Amino acid sequence: MSRWDRWIDWPAGAEVLDSPDLAPGYSAGTASVGLKGPGSDDLALLRIDSGLEARSALALTANAAAAAPVQVCRESCDSAHLEGVVVTAGNANAGTGDKGLEDARAIRQRAAEALGLEYGRVAIAQTGVIGVPLDLEPLLEGVDKAAEDLGHGHAHQFANAIRTTDAMEKQIAVFCDGVTLTAQAKGAGMIQPGFATMLCFVQTDGVCDGLTEIARSAVGRSFERISVDGQMSTNDTVVVQANGASGLSMPEGLLDAAMLHLALEIVGDGEGATRVARATVTGAADDEEAERVARAIANSPLIKTALYGRDPNWGRILQAVGAELAGEDIGGFGQDSIAADELESDRQEVEISVELSRGEASAHTYFSDLTKRYIEINAEYTT
Amino acid sequence: MSRWDRWIDWPAGAEVLDSPDLAPGYSAGTASVGLKGPGSDDLALLRIDSGLEARSALALTANAAAAAPVQVCRESCDSAHLEGVVVTAGNANAGTGDKGLEDARAIRQRAAEALGLEYGRVAIAQTGVIGVPLDLEPLLEGVDKAAEDLGHGHAHQFANAIRTTDAMEKQIAVFCDGVTLTAQAKGAGMIQPGFATMLCFVQTDGVCDGLTEIARSAVGRSFERISVDGQMSTNDTVVVQANGASGLSMPEGLLDAAMLHLALEIVGDGEGATRVARATVTGAADDEEAERVARAIANSPLIKTALYGRDPNWGRILQAVGAELAGEDIGGFGQDSIAADELESDRQEVEISVELSRGEASAHTYFSDLTKRYIEINAEYTT
Repeated sequence: MSRWDRWIDWPAGAEVLDSPDLAPGYSAGTASVGLKGPGSDDLALLRIDSGLEARSALALTANAAAAAPVQVCRESCDSAHLEGVVVTAGNANAGTGDKGLEDARAIRQRAAEALGLEYGRVAIAQTGVIGVPLDLEPLLEGVDKAAEDLGHGHAHQFANAIRTTDAMEKQIAVFCDGVTLTAQAKGAGMIQPGFATMLCFVQTDGVCDGLTEIARSAVGRSFERISVDGQMSTNDTVVVQANGASGLSMPEGLLDAAMLHLALEIVGDGEGATRVARATVTGAADDEEAERVARAIANSPLIKTALYGRDPNWGRILQAVGAELAGEDIGGFGQDSIAADELESDRQEVEISVELSRGEASAHTYFSDLTKRYIEINAEYTT
Repeated sequence: MSRWDRWIDWPAGAEVLDSPDLAPGYSAGTASVGLKGPGSDDLALLRIDSGLEARSALALTANAAAAAPVQVCRESCDSAHLEGVVVTAGNANAGTGDKGLEDARAIRQRAAEALGLEYGRVAIAQTGVIGVPLDLEPLLEGVDKAAEDLGHGHAHQFANAIRTTDAMEKQIAVFCDGVTLTAQAKGAGMIQPGFATMLCFVQTDGVCDGLTEIARSAVGRSFERISVDGQMSTNDTVVVQANGASGLSMPEGLLDAAMLHLALEIVGDGEGATRVARATVTGAADDEEAERVARAIANSPLIKTALYGRDPNWGRILQAVGAELAGEDIGGFGQDSIAADELESDRQEVEISVELSRGEASAHTYFSDLTKRYIEINAEYTT
């Protein structure tokens, strides 16, 4: 169904929809408040239509220097019953102290009023430059404007409004076994002076029991397995909503597949990225070890430059694995344990595999290459 | 005494010697065996003159995929009484399986014979390309040639023979309170297709009680605090020797200062490096936390590109610190906790400071910038 199908297990019968509509029972509205310059939508509201029961899940960055909107969601959020979301793009409201917290609360409060929802049932997410105070008044007015704009056919408009330096809009709409799922994401790494953050919003009309666990697991297998530059943002936020409007259960694996698709879209749009690789680690002693080694491969600048340079340099993989397992006995681990032939191919999506022969656990990570363009983007676009 | 004096506390009275001699009571010899191409010395021997008592310390990489010479040193080495060292440059003998181990043992055995020393009192260190089997015979002949070449005045010759892709020779000779210390190092990151490794050899005629602990601590404050690209090599080796020939105690802090000097020389010669920064973390809860945060700053590609681009981007430091302390409460940590003004200066040696306000512990790391040249070196020089 997309560039990434080699790596995604879509549930049988899933089909991509070519429609501007959100999943049934959801509306979105946007406004331009000047954060991304004149004329660009940069504030968005999303809500479950009234009368439908809201089930939701919320995942927030663990960064200890979390942005104000993340702190405000942490302090009071009915995360299992979120009905509305307010998003702004262009300013991360991070490193902004007490004023940042007050601003985030005020925007969230205005969104709750404009949507006619309880404060605790509205989440706030912000993305953009770190360390710049917000000009609050235009944002509050923008919330009212976006509320007047609410409509079911605004999926692309919503996906576009939450972008910052993303080269492309990231969204998907899938229909499977009578259930619709739509999702939008943004993120291209910790790009530009603090243009931080991945955000992801998922809407389904399916019925989801145990949504918190399902969403937690899907995030763990998608957004937590990608690396552009190994840098955890101050603002990362994922909101999954299920309004049950279809009366049917959400097919197993649908959320997993959709999130992995959007996570790969983010990696593919990584800063300066020309190729994407999947690292597969098998034979690890346990899951934690498998993930740790797969992540070490994804974050190695030497492997990322080899990916860029089409260099089948298994020595760098040997080095990275050995460094991550420093002090452990990895016995006969060597060239025969590493498959990296695709590095030198013309493929844009590359498989790298490592067999540790220590146990039965396995893990994947997905990562972009490290290119001169990454350096240009991050060194030359100064504050 | 050098570019790095702002960051090094040399003991009072220390003076740099302009002499080709090793510290009294040490000899070195070199030979050309073809590992680095015709005509370049690439095999070296170093020994304590006979009749002197050998005290020594040995530090080896913890990489689980350690090279054959490291494994061979681990399996049998009288590391507190090393009298001789054999070094080859141009081939790391890593990822070379059982043949690599046999080759390393054979070279070490031949060196012990040529130097008239016990096998267990000779260390072996190798550096260069990963995963290429050695052609043993020329190496064994080279050991004999190097043994015939032994002389006291061969410090530069030794420092040159152990280089691989280093742009410059790294060595120092210091005299302080009647004691001489000479030291040679190589390393510029995990450069080229597996051109791995930092190596360091230190010779002093001082008397050193507790050399193992002193050397361990000096390594911990120098080579373990630098980062070119965050990649632990398969071959890192440090050998410190003290023959007591002067009859005087080695001045306190001399080994620390000399190792930090050479560590900074390696960072300054890092792949594509144009600037070097010191990250100072204060107010950490404990030493482990201070080191962890200082290392996270040193390894952040966003901070390394900001260093390159002279971008005083404190938001990236906020992000890196918050990510490393994910889940912790860092309360009022923000712009006022970060000093990064020198990033935008014309200085080649830049101070970055972070105050965590969580306790009394502190730590330094030293790191190079991330430049387009790094990408060229690592992506375009393929195997």
